Amino acid sequence: MDAMRRPVAVAPDTRPVMYDAFSAAVRDAGGEVADLAEAQALIWADPYAAGLYPELIAAAPAVEWVQLPYAGVEPFLDYLDTRFTWTCAKGVYADPVAEWVMAALLMGFRDFHLFATADSWCAESGRNLLGSRITVLGGGGITRSLMRMLEPWGCQVTVVRRSAAPFEGAARTLTLAQAHEAVAGADAVVVALALTDETRHVVNAALLESMGPRCWLVNVARGGHVDHAALGAALRAGTIAGAVLDVTDPEPLPDSSELWGLANCVITPHIGNTREMGLPLITNRVRENVRRWLAGEELLGLVDVALGY
Amino acid sequence: MDAMRRPVAVAPDTRPVMYDAFSAAVRDAGGEVADLAEAQALIWADPYAAGLYPELIAAAPAVEWVQLPYAGVEPFLDYLDTRFTWTCAKGVYADPVAEWVMAALLMGFRDFHLFATADSWCAESGRNLLGSRITVLGGGGITRSLMRMLEPWGCQVTVVRRSAAPFEGAARTLTLAQAHEAVAGADAVVVALALTDETRHVVNAALLESMGPRCWLVNVARGGHVDHAALGAALRAGTIAGAVLDVTDPEPLPDSSELWGLANCVITPHIGNTREMGLPLITNRVRENVRRWLAGEELLGLVDVALGY
Repeated sequence: MDAMRRPVAVAPDTRPVMYDAFSAAVRDAGGEVADLAEAQALIWADPYAAGLYPELIAAAPAVEWVQLPYAGVEPFLDYLDTRFTWTCAKGVYADPVAEWVMAALLMGFRDFHLFATADSWCAESGRNLLGSRITVLGGGGITRSLMRMLEPWGCQVTVVRRSAAPFEGAARTLTLAQAHEAVAGADAVVVALALTDETRHVVNAALLESMGPRCWLVNVARGGHVDHAALGAALRAGTIAGAVLDVTDPEPLPDSSELWGLANCVITPHIGNTREMGLPLITNRVRENVRRWLAGEELLGLVDVALGY
Repeated sequence: MDAMRRPVAVAPDTRPVMYDAFSAAVRDAGGEVADLAEAQALIWADPYAAGLYPELIAAAPAVEWVQLPYAGVEPFLDYLDTRFTWTCAKGVYADPVAEWVMAALLMGFRDFHLFATADSWCAESGRNLLGSRITVLGGGGITRSLMRMLEPWGCQVTVVRRSAAPFEGAARTLTLAQAHEAVAGADAVVVALALTDETRHVVNAALLESMGPRCWLVNVARGGHVDHAALGAALRAGTIAGAVLDVTDPEPLPDSSELWGLANCVITPHIGNTREMGLPLITNRVRENVRRWLAGEELLGLVDVALGY
């Protein structure tokens, strides 16, 4: 075997669109797509077929690196072992969700939700995202992507999370116990938290009151974070400026919800990251990681096998 | 006189909102607001009162720097002289216009114009600005601001301008003669050109055909750049994906225009930069330039007196 060859297997082939995209990405990165029998790396190509792993890896004795197509590695938890370097799609799927947040903020601030429904020349209106004050509830991957996208806008960002340890790029980092202080004076509050007993209905009547009449609510986390009855009342009363929701409780939101009829409320059907968006993004990650692996550089999305993420 | 004093005059006072904002900005920057008689810098505070300049400058013998509130300096062309350092608001007003372009791109790509009008849960749709191909017609200040805002999105940007000299941040720079090549395969075409005989109706039936059915048209320049009849036909036929127009021909666009009735066309009332947005932005520039002037740093928006801009 040529000492310079570092063949890569793409498997399984049960999901042809993903299999073809990943195979092309390996070649684009300068890699050679090969059979499992001689592969030194394995690019997993079907998120719904983790059960095939034991059989396939047994047929791939030379593999040293496994790339998974998931952000989390849950379906592979039983298989993770320190024989291999494992990488996953950590961070990849946060980008389209953060993009959705940017679209929501810009639509609300610049009144595009009103112009989109107009059938006549409107009066001048809108305000800038530039230089505004944004409070983000949550300090995970979506918030990191959002900070990167907000960087050119000169916003003052407050991050609210479990720990008050400074969040990179944020002007302030506060804890959930300080939520009222965190949202006071904000131009928008973005919800990007995990849903737990502690965070259910974190956006309630009292918090909406603290946000104030200039403030937009943007929810990209889970419908259960927001008390929908309190939100409807606040939107009708002008307690806050408006809301853009990608998640509702329940989903789909029934046609009978009063939120559909409010001009200052826009609901999108849980499309922060669509199936169609995911494939090119994970394909880019595969291409970049194959390039890095061949060049001997550090891989993106490394999994800590001991911690299981 | 205290050798350390560097007093700043804000004048005229004919536009109280601007006068007050600039005076506060001078103080915020650590400066001292003083009378013309002793001022070493003059912050001009009324865009509509250039005619007062000769009288006021005659009363201000110690001035060495004049800050103008305009992006262009046209109303002051007769007064520019090399006795002073002149600065204007160059680049300041491009930011809100570039922000409008980002709002338009994200609305179109993520289908927010459809969700904003929905009164029921929709099917999943939308695509990413992330990693897309954007062609910008024009290589001025708006394009520079837009490039800065697009930076985190990993787009491939093609800039079309008079000269094919590389534009910073662009993957390709082409000339207007290559417009068809420049728009082929683009996900969006942004018009940010000056309107001249050469650029009138640059977006005509043939160019729309070259753009193709996935491509959005975003016009933030002048209505005259786009052949509205050809655009209406292209939007109805699906020759392009959609259009977002901040400028029309004529303005306001009459209610009888067919464009109002098209779901894939959103029209905003020339609000790229509103009067309300301008004041905080130029105020920020005044504050920053006073800070720089007091610190002996280079000023932003320097005017070349010989060239007149």
